[in-house]
Amino acid sequence: MTSGSWEEFFATHLPPTDFEDNRSLLKEFCERHNKYGNKIALVTSGGTTVPLEHNTVRLIDNFSAGNRGATATEYFLENGYAVIFMHRQKSQEPFTRHFNGSKLLDMLDLQEQGPNTTITVKQDSVYVLAPILARYQAAHAAGALLHVSFTTVSDYFWLLRAACECLANLGPRALLFLAAAVSDFYIPKDRVPTHKMQSASGPPVIHLHLVPKMLAPLVNLWVPEAFVVSFKLETDESLLVSKGRAALEKYKHKMVVANLLQTRNQRVILITPEANQEILLTKEELHSGVEIEGPIVSEIVRLHAEHLAPR
Amino acid sequence: MTSGSWEEFFATHLPPTDFEDNRSLLKEFCERHNKYGNKIALVTSGGTTVPLEHNTVRLIDNFSAGNRGATATEYFLENGYAVIFMHRQKSQEPFTRHFNGSKLLDMLDLQEQGPNTTITVKQDSVYVLAPILARYQAAHAAGALLHVSFTTVSDYFWLLRAACECLANLGPRALLFLAAAVSDFYIPKDRVPTHKMQSASGPPVIHLHLVPKMLAPLVNLWVPEAFVVSFKLETDESLLVSKGRAALEKYKHKMVVANLLQTRNQRVILITPEANQEILLTKEELHSGVEIEGPIVSEIVRLHAEHLAPR
Repeated sequence: MTSGSWEEFFATHLPPTDFEDNRSLLKEFCERHNKYGNKIALVTSGGTTVPLEHNTVRLIDNFSAGNRGATATEYFLENGYAVIFMHRQKSQEPFTRHFNGSKLLDMLDLQEQGPNTTITVKQDSVYVLAPILARYQAAHAAGALLHVSFTTVSDYFWLLRAACECLANLGPRALLFLAAAVSDFYIPKDRVPTHKMQSASGPPVIHLHLVPKMLAPLVNLWVPEAFVVSFKLETDESLLVSKGRAALEKYKHKMVVANLLQTRNQRVILITPEANQEILLTKEELHSGVEIEGPIVSEIVRLHAEHLAPR
Repeated sequence: MTSGSWEEFFATHLPPTDFEDNRSLLKEFCERHNKYGNKIALVTSGGTTVPLEHNTVRLIDNFSAGNRGATATEYFLENGYAVIFMHRQKSQEPFTRHFNGSKLLDMLDLQEQGPNTTITVKQDSVYVLAPILARYQAAHAAGALLHVSFTTVSDYFWLLRAACECLANLGPRALLFLAAAVSDFYIPKDRVPTHKMQSASGPPVIHLHLVPKMLAPLVNLWVPEAFVVSFKLETDESLLVSKGRAALEKYKHKMVVANLLQTRNQRVILITPEANQEILLTKEELHSGVEIEGPIVSEIVRLHAEHLAPR
């Protein structure tokens, strides 16, 4: 069975309810940064869901906490890019990712003095929080970061195409860092039951269909001048480089970042038309808190600069 | 096809890797509060996953942000209970749930003065944050709140049984508020492929099996004296009360809280052996921020007191 075409996918799946609001935000953001000649990175992040019921109780999900995209966003901002952070709802976000759970509450001191109650950050937490807070406030003050979010695989594709329509005007100054873990499978709208599946009817059998490969129209039609980076996540080392290179040859974009689920925070292979370049953190680097997204983004930024001003 | 027995489930699924650590925490928590004659509420919260691969990239999930359990935990603490908050990793948590995303970062003011940098909460945010922070700090200072977390449906059952083993010693002072959205279906361990499914092999067909109903051994064997409250989430109004009451008659526990996915924050029906009691918030109450978990927990606490000292 082959997958349907991407045109068919958009024809049969409605846009998400907040689509027009997000499209306006994307348009305004891209026009503003285009006017100043800025570079924009579109970072996609987190997994997409495939609902098993229209009133969704059950769904198929792709594992991804969204760390890669949230972290890379901070490094793109540091490198002077404006960033569209297109993320799965409730996945990790830039800046707040450093303070999961109750970490931030634990940093606070409450001085109760009736109407003069004050709350301050404990002095021994200030040195951790201050630099992150300063970068967060600077990004927002500059209007350099736009958040838009998705949940289902269909929401994701609608948003992705809308972002590309706005980014096309930037030509080669647009960079796409497609780190979201997008489902390869889905259930066509007319096969999804309306109500929650009842366990009394016995265990269900789920028939999945292949999602059309959106990278093809994206590279060829939507943003033909952009610097496009896709990701390949595998669990089997023996398939990693071959599948990554096959994707690059098929879609003819600029880079595939190949990584294994088990070691993704320590090692990636940047596959470009010219080479396979391994980035490997040492144990010491990992322990001292070095993030692999730093060198990944540096190398992408360098290649993007060459793309903009070829030697 | 019928589901296997619960004994078979535990015999074929290994405990999670952090199981012994969590069991020690549960044991210490229950023994300490039992010594003081305290009541303990076990609150389960969030959805469970069913991995589709051993090296999990894809999984089936049950939709639940975990708001019900996280909110109810705060109300049980207010009512003098010690609380075991057993939640899906990265679902909503008590206290921090009020500050999702970057809300807390946005409340902070950074005064940069070289080595004397200070960070304070803006005065107009203090009145929101102070009461929540005070309750958070009081719960932790009293050692009244224990967090343990799960991801898969198998992790969940292992933790649930371990918690029940510790709670059994409290007799009727134990209360179980089983709000987690637990999968009815799973894929037996030996049917799960090791590596990520390859889309080139064509779309997969997923055959699900029924999960054994753990409420039966829980009520009859694990915590026979406890006050057990289960939840029934439906999307179809016509099934809501009948399915809730059928569950109560089948498992013979104390209460089923029945709710519709679409209106779960506004209306629930508390189904007990004696009555169906509706709790319905008015639009005004909803708009002014009243949380339905307040009256739900109040009524459960009242019935639990009767259970402890019958008239």
